[in-house]
Amino acid sequence: MTKQRKKTKKVFGAPKDRPVILVTNDDGVTSPGLKALVEVMNELGEAVVVAPDSPQSGMGHAITIHSPLRLDRVDYHGDTLSYQCTGTPVDCVKLAVNKILNRKPDLLVSGINHGSNSSINVIYSGTMSAAMEGAIEGIPSIGFSLLNYKLDADMTTSKHVAKVIASNILKHKLPVNTLLNVNIPDLPPDQLKGIKVCRQALAKWKEEFDERLDPHGVEYYWLTGKFINNDKGMDTDEWALENGYVSVVPVEFDFTAYHAITYLNNMKWNV
Amino acid sequence: MTKQRKKTKKVFGAPKDRPVILVTNDDGVTSPGLKALVEVMNELGEAVVVAPDSPQSGMGHAITIHSPLRLDRVDYHGDTLSYQCTGTPVDCVKLAVNKILNRKPDLLVSGINHGSNSSINVIYSGTMSAAMEGAIEGIPSIGFSLLNYKLDADMTTSKHVAKVIASNILKHKLPVNTLLNVNIPDLPPDQLKGIKVCRQALAKWKEEFDERLDPHGVEYYWLTGKFINNDKGMDTDEWALENGYVSVVPVEFDFTAYHAITYLNNMKWNV
Repeated sequence: MTKQRKKTKKVFGAPKDRPVILVTNDDGVTSPGLKALVEVMNELGEAVVVAPDSPQSGMGHAITIHSPLRLDRVDYHGDTLSYQCTGTPVDCVKLAVNKILNRKPDLLVSGINHGSNSSINVIYSGTMSAAMEGAIEGIPSIGFSLLNYKLDADMTTSKHVAKVIASNILKHKLPVNTLLNVNIPDLPPDQLKGIKVCRQALAKWKEEFDERLDPHGVEYYWLTGKFINNDKGMDTDEWALENGYVSVVPVEFDFTAYHAITYLNNMKWNV
Repeated sequence: MTKQRKKTKKVFGAPKDRPVILVTNDDGVTSPGLKALVEVMNELGEAVVVAPDSPQSGMGHAITIHSPLRLDRVDYHGDTLSYQCTGTPVDCVKLAVNKILNRKPDLLVSGINHGSNSSINVIYSGTMSAAMEGAIEGIPSIGFSLLNYKLDADMTTSKHVAKVIASNILKHKLPVNTLLNVNIPDLPPDQLKGIKVCRQALAKWKEEFDERLDPHGVEYYWLTGKFINNDKGMDTDEWALENGYVSVVPVEFDFTAYHAITYLNNMKWNV
């Protein structure tokens, strides 16, 4: 692997007749899931990679404001223009849009994440936060996740699904201020039942901190937990995934709970 | 300041007739905004502090899964049971609920943040992510932010507002799966116009990376930006704040864009 630093300001000039597709993730620039996604996107357009230089799972929508960022050109993805960044997935999207690309990309894809980002995981996920940042920038954006944590997971089904969905979004775009959270069951292509548009299941994690003593006798904790889903709706992503479907949840970044406004307006605040 | 480590498992036993109020933030356990909030909450109930040991601004909904967490009892807040944690604001909430408190708190308050978390900032904010984690845990939760970045900002108005809003929520609770994002203009109490329930303005940051050379001649970047608000609705938090009101936005953690489901169902996915 060679690695070189170079002037990065808006270096990318893709032919106007090919879609430019920004590819990022939270597992890091060398992850097999990212590699699979780059391969597929190069069939649909011109992929450009800007991804973290190390795994960033669980980073949520973190950004780096108190330390500087580095951006390095790398050759992990053959002829595909690729950069690694010292920051979070959201930093990667901001840097790509501002410092690498000379026009707004036609699509942003994030993943393929090694592990589920269904239901409440959308909130903790660096993969989905990168996609959300893309949507805030006005780019049609999709996060892809495979329900298999292993780095050597079979990506055949995921690549097929990513191609079908990405080509549809390149053609039909997305409603304004909306992105997609796509989760893919760990099944061979012939066992996949299809694609199902869903809502986010209202599941949660029940934390269980693993409590240990360090060699100096001092306590520390590992965050672990059990996924608890009491939301059995057949319109949820969890139902779809359990029943062999790819789940596609449209996601928005307007977090306002409109249904609660009347309730709050009836309170007497007495300021 | 003394600091001691001790067995932390569910050590807290508050009298049943007083509300237990979990206090956290993203500016760190010693921040003046947290101190102000602790003082007010001790007037309404029994405050317990679990906050990061260092500033965590911009951490979004990050969690710590690849390194262990430390939790230390500290005495920065007089008689108030207080812990600092090596993790993110969300980690603090998870640890508090699982390792410190022996019952679910009656209220979680996060802040008072030194700086705005209105409109799109809700997504990047560690303050608001802590409150969101509280809501996921089923705790009525509120994030408070003052529109003044300075550590020596006058907290008089903010303390008054926090007391009014927190006492209302202790009494009336919140609709299920909802939390509050409260932003407070930097005004003396007699210039405050009142409290306004709002929606999140659809504003965004226009990034501007400050590009520099390090002493070795290699480029690095600082993330900066301008806040751009083209959403002029009088029902938005930005409008309220510009016009001298405290903004109260109800926030939800179901991110599903329900309005987009029909559009997506009309696509032919051809999987």
